[in-house]
Amino acid sequence: MSAHYIIGLDLGGTNIKARLVDEQGVVHERYDAPTEADGGPEHVTRRLAGAARAVCTCHDIDISEVAGIGVGSPGPLDAKAGTVISSVNLPGWRNHPLRDELSRLTGKPAVILNDANAACYGEYWVGAGRGVENLVMFTLGTGLGGGVILGGSLLCGHFGQGGELGHMVVDPDGPRCGCGQHGCLEAFASEPHLMRRAVELGVWPAVDGHNARDLLQALEAGHEGAQCVWNECCEAIATAIVTLQHVLNPAMVVLGGGVSAAGDRLLTPVREAHARLMWSLAEDAPSIELAALGNDAGAIGAAGWFLRGRGLR
Amino acid sequence: MSAHYIIGLDLGGTNIKARLVDEQGVVHERYDAPTEADGGPEHVTRRLAGAARAVCTCHDIDISEVAGIGVGSPGPLDAKAGTVISSVNLPGWRNHPLRDELSRLTGKPAVILNDANAACYGEYWVGAGRGVENLVMFTLGTGLGGGVILGGSLLCGHFGQGGELGHMVVDPDGPRCGCGQHGCLEAFASEPHLMRRAVELGVWPAVDGHNARDLLQALEAGHEGAQCVWNECCEAIATAIVTLQHVLNPAMVVLGGGVSAAGDRLLTPVREAHARLMWSLAEDAPSIELAALGNDAGAIGAAGWFLRGRGLR
Repeated sequence: MSAHYIIGLDLGGTNIKARLVDEQGVVHERYDAPTEADGGPEHVTRRLAGAARAVCTCHDIDISEVAGIGVGSPGPLDAKAGTVISSVNLPGWRNHPLRDELSRLTGKPAVILNDANAACYGEYWVGAGRGVENLVMFTLGTGLGGGVILGGSLLCGHFGQGGELGHMVVDPDGPRCGCGQHGCLEAFASEPHLMRRAVELGVWPAVDGHNARDLLQALEAGHEGAQCVWNECCEAIATAIVTLQHVLNPAMVVLGGGVSAAGDRLLTPVREAHARLMWSLAEDAPSIELAALGNDAGAIGAAGWFLRGRGLR
Repeated sequence: MSAHYIIGLDLGGTNIKARLVDEQGVVHERYDAPTEADGGPEHVTRRLAGAARAVCTCHDIDISEVAGIGVGSPGPLDAKAGTVISSVNLPGWRNHPLRDELSRLTGKPAVILNDANAACYGEYWVGAGRGVENLVMFTLGTGLGGGVILGGSLLCGHFGQGGELGHMVVDPDGPRCGCGQHGCLEAFASEPHLMRRAVELGVWPAVDGHNARDLLQALEAGHEGAQCVWNECCEAIATAIVTLQHVLNPAMVVLGGGVSAAGDRLLTPVREAHARLMWSLAEDAPSIELAALGNDAGAIGAAGWFLRGRGLR
């Protein structure tokens, strides 16, 4: 007899990740495929359903044997209605009924949630924040997402857009963000911003073809401009952590996403900047840790959120 | 037969406010007295107990007839342990067991909570935010406090210091705050800061003897410096609201405390700045409103929090 499996899907602008997850959060099978986002919402939804079936087939089970599907999707989205309102990385998506379409195509119940919230829930469930009932997570990547766990549950807020930590204002005089605001954390610490800032500070002549790994190499080579870019990034993250310390008072802050592959070269300066910037009136500093689940966090968390919605954990 | 009363106490650096409150949040009696904070924690605690008895006597009932006592106190404090850790406005207070001492002196069960949290809970219970399950409140006064209601309950956080909204960083290059950080909201929008900034911008030659009312008069008289001070204050509050919109996604933001007596002269520019500064990706702007309970908010909220802890509402 097969274990009770859930399919976790992580929908990205470039790739779809499908994971077959059990009730303990263990991944038993992985299946990745290109999103083909240019094909539009119906095309991508069929590809998601295909990946869900494919990850079952790879494990030699039928999709009828799984309990259901959790999807982490770019947003903003309406988790209750099951619709994606819009997305910068998914052209043509406008109030797309992702959840119900996916259910229809697979014959399985589904839930959708914000992709960074899903990663946060995954790290809380079986990752770096296991058992930490009040925690905050940043996903540092192409965008800058976030999630908040309070009392063991995801903070959603009145409009369902809670935990959008990338759009906290860390410096009102800062650069304009893609969202229209000025000085968002995302405008300081997302990978595309780091690449642009590296051009401004002479690390390389143009953005094209560079990524966070190149910046870290320039850093190791002792490039002053690269050091400056990196310091600004770590300082902006630390400033956001100080604000979250006072608003939410979490026990832990988890740093995840592609940029967090920098490891200690990210963790150490963020911890140092936070210790320098925070108050001394009360001993309420959160611990700051690296994420533990890597690229699986979103899919695992989406599966866990499905289970939770079903009252199974 | 008497109604079921609760005593709400609001402990300030200058005055103690005692309110006899019923289970619907209606105030039946008021009794105010100087705090005499220089007398130290034992002295002030006896004065609090005295005010609790006095508000009963004024209403011609015995303190034995009330259900218990809720106290809103300056912090940081440890609500679970019932102790005040320290306070800028209460000299000599170090881990003072306020709750248990007050219980001993009155023979009544008691709870303590942060004073701004108490005001927030009061506004949620029977004030501007009645029935709004996700709301945020700023108390704009000598200090700048805050409170957060999520799902109808006060956010406390892992260390019990959640909702300290005055120490959100709104501008990392901003002035140093009394807490040791730079650019806290409190360093832009608390009354003492406004008075100092008014000196810098030539509204008057020295801080002494001036208050927020004088600033508003200078504003009405068309003083450019006063306008600048006020704009900075409103812009800082609006910036903090943008960040809270993305972190907590509340339905409402309530502005209270002494500075909020400015009424529409505060509300209108804060609303305008918020509308200008916030994103356009999702329609999730909270409404921004003035507090409704005035000086009673903290005592009413403390009484309501006591009732809630007893499972009576």
